[in-house]
Amino acid sequence: MLGQDQFSKSSSSYLCGMKLKNDLLLRAARGEQVERTPVWMMRQAGRILAEYRAVRAQAGSFIKLATNPELAAEVTLQPVDLLGVDAAIIFSDILVVPEAMGLPYEMEENRGPVFPNIVQTHRDIEKLRVADAQTDLAYVLDAIKIVKRDLNGRVPLIGFAGAPFTIFCYMTEGRGSKTFSVAKKALYTDPVFSHKLLQKITDSTIGYLKAQVVAGADLLQLFDSWAGVLSPQQYREFSLPYIKQICDSISEVPLTVFAKGAFFARHDIGALNCAVVGLDWNMDARESRVLIPNKTLQGNLDPCVLYADYAQIRTEVKNMTHAFGTQRYIANLGHGVYPDTNPDKVRCFIEAVKEFSAV
Amino acid sequence: MLGQDQFSKSSSSYLCGMKLKNDLLLRAARGEQVERTPVWMMRQAGRILAEYRAVRAQAGSFIKLATNPELAAEVTLQPVDLLGVDAAIIFSDILVVPEAMGLPYEMEENRGPVFPNIVQTHRDIEKLRVADAQTDLAYVLDAIKIVKRDLNGRVPLIGFAGAPFTIFCYMTEGRGSKTFSVAKKALYTDPVFSHKLLQKITDSTIGYLKAQVVAGADLLQLFDSWAGVLSPQQYREFSLPYIKQICDSISEVPLTVFAKGAFFARHDIGALNCAVVGLDWNMDARESRVLIPNKTLQGNLDPCVLYADYAQIRTEVKNMTHAFGTQRYIANLGHGVYPDTNPDKVRCFIEAVKEFSAV
Repeated sequence: MLGQDQFSKSSSSYLCGMKLKNDLLLRAARGEQVERTPVWMMRQAGRILAEYRAVRAQAGSFIKLATNPELAAEVTLQPVDLLGVDAAIIFSDILVVPEAMGLPYEMEENRGPVFPNIVQTHRDIEKLRVADAQTDLAYVLDAIKIVKRDLNGRVPLIGFAGAPFTIFCYMTEGRGSKTFSVAKKALYTDPVFSHKLLQKITDSTIGYLKAQVVAGADLLQLFDSWAGVLSPQQYREFSLPYIKQICDSISEVPLTVFAKGAFFARHDIGALNCAVVGLDWNMDARESRVLIPNKTLQGNLDPCVLYADYAQIRTEVKNMTHAFGTQRYIANLGHGVYPDTNPDKVRCFIEAVKEFSAV
Repeated sequence: MLGQDQFSKSSSSYLCGMKLKNDLLLRAARGEQVERTPVWMMRQAGRILAEYRAVRAQAGSFIKLATNPELAAEVTLQPVDLLGVDAAIIFSDILVVPEAMGLPYEMEENRGPVFPNIVQTHRDIEKLRVADAQTDLAYVLDAIKIVKRDLNGRVPLIGFAGAPFTIFCYMTEGRGSKTFSVAKKALYTDPVFSHKLLQKITDSTIGYLKAQVVAGADLLQLFDSWAGVLSPQQYREFSLPYIKQICDSISEVPLTVFAKGAFFARHDIGALNCAVVGLDWNMDARESRVLIPNKTLQGNLDPCVLYADYAQIRTEVKNMTHAFGTQRYIANLGHGVYPDTNPDKVRCFIEAVKEFSAV
């Protein structure tokens, strides 16, 4: 007879009342013993797969695909079936949050996202709303429910959002940038404005992440994609406090914080109330273990390794799994997989992790 | 009576037979005592100054300006007269080296440099020549000579070149990129090709830097602008060995190595045969002192600080000079000054360094 504690959060793989057949990701995130390292890839549901490109063409545009729950669910499931990853991650975009706050974006071919309007004044902030996930982001929640039904417990599903500072970058700069100097100018010239907007993004993000858990997400990841443009001092003032609020608000499922480029903040991020810390490929595995004790680490193969031949990919994966060790570790790339990567090389990476990490 | 040793390299401010009136930069670089911290700015000769924009308009294009010795000299001198910096840096571009090797580039408005042809095969490398600075880069050397004459010993003149890996990035990728995945693909798929091209760039660069010294450069800086796209392991294999060759070849004047984003390589760079290590604004001053003992450090104010008000700029400069200390330190930004910076804010930065660093 199963005791109640078998259904409790700490030991549970019975989320949403359904036992996961493969719960390696969740056990590794919680610091429990695993028989091998779980592996998945950022941007695994994407352009590397011909099957994705077919659905994307059918949808007509990236945004039409992301806002169609049936199609978004379909591409979310593809890498589970085709690549053998240990987790699905919902197909979506971090910019759905500003859109839900009242700031729509467009996706320009070969240029990335563009916001026709940007946030420049206190009045602009006041015109934005705190996103109501149930109404403004229902299409993502619906996609999560479809994925959970169709996964049928095979692997866990990861939900995600952008970290507030990264969302702030897009809302104030209006587009991608190497320096995000417009966004950073706001931090230096008007910290009151900046904190006010960051708080509104944070409030929207917490509600959205909680709604993803209710819809079925088994683990959540925060992407602070532009963390690396900030000085250590600015990061402590304008990014970490908002990530901390999110970490302290989410107790339902494990949370991963991935702050690309914020090598200087590893110790501080490791002290947050999160389960997993993501690393990019600039960050040394052993040094990161010292800076971030008692957390699970995720990462961090250079995506360009997947351009190499099969033998070299295996060697690099072997070195990586050896450096991180088999426990408290989730294998991944150090950034999203590049669109022109050969899916067979991706499969080689995934199989090599499974082979070399078996206890 | 002056002894010969007063003209020797180690104590000399008599380079090219002319005593420098302000040799703070050179003394700081050599680790000699200074009465205050020298200060200059990357991209100080550039679009921040209306006087630069006027000469640029007269020249007709960036490349026409850079290849016209009289005009290049004129814009090199402007920040010495207008901003009060403690050094001039020759107005040029790191991409003059690939051009001198036989791979011309164009400068597209709002897009940056573009190479119509890229290097993809061993045959492409063989078609390139090792640059002969005296013929292929005479226009830069002529500009240096004019600047030296017109400076008349007021401040030292800095010469520069791109580090071989950064030049390799442009020669193989053909343009700027956030990831330089094409360039990095070459490293992983064809290391023999990569090392062969890197060596040819290195040979060209050594000759070019030595020619700059003969023409009058008092200090040299190597810019490894794209260091941050590499993993620590790739950096050790494909960038550091070539920087080391250059450091070991230049004994005439002090050399600065600035590897943006290579926080992970600070210890290794500090062990090279260079006088100064440049830091970007992600790199903490005190931590960098520990990682790089016994070298002069240069940097590292976030260029976006210059968007703040005067009081805040002064506070940030005060914190920076306090963190680095007054000796073995050259004040600078952590990257090039942004083109839309108010020159009065730049002057505030420069004056604040002079005020707060006075011993």
